Amino acid sequence: MIKARVTVTLKNGVLDPQGKAIEGALGTLGFGGVGHVRQGKVFDIELDGSDKAKAEADLKAMCEKLLANTVIENYAISLT
Amino acid sequence: MIKARVTVTLKNGVLDPQGKAIEGALGTLGFGGVGHVRQGKVFDIELDGSDKAKAEADLKAMCEKLLANTVIENYAISLT
Repeated sequence: MIKARVTVTLKNGVLDPQGKAIEGALGTLGFGGVGHVRQGKVFDIELDGSDKAKAEADLKAMCEKLLANTVIENYAISLT
Repeated sequence: MIKARVTVTLKNGVLDPQGKAIEGALGTLGFGGVGHVRQGKVFDIELDGSDKAKAEADLKAMCEKLLANTVIENYAISLT
């Protein structure tokens, strides 16, 4: 079995109201010196088999088709 | 400036309906051999200063107070 972690983050330049809200909330809570905050998603996926090349190709297809909106989001795949 | 990535994931045993939905959707899209899927959150945070120990302590406090619900979620901090 292969375990993978897919991280989906907003592309630079895409507005992130959720991140901005967190920035504001951290300031309100008294945390100084906090710069930009950006929020993203992470998916921990288990795949059958042990062919890492196939797993990586499958995961890339999953990201393109379902997990990420490639117009506004980047994704990174790491096998663990 | 210090850049940090905080990853918040559900603890083992906590139900993850969003992950289950993704599992189902991947199956429907024709991806075979997909086991469990768990969804989490990632925060990319910029902090002023260059004191890594202080940054790590601050980030831990941010996770405890705002970013993670430590009853059901784990968090991991990595400075980049």
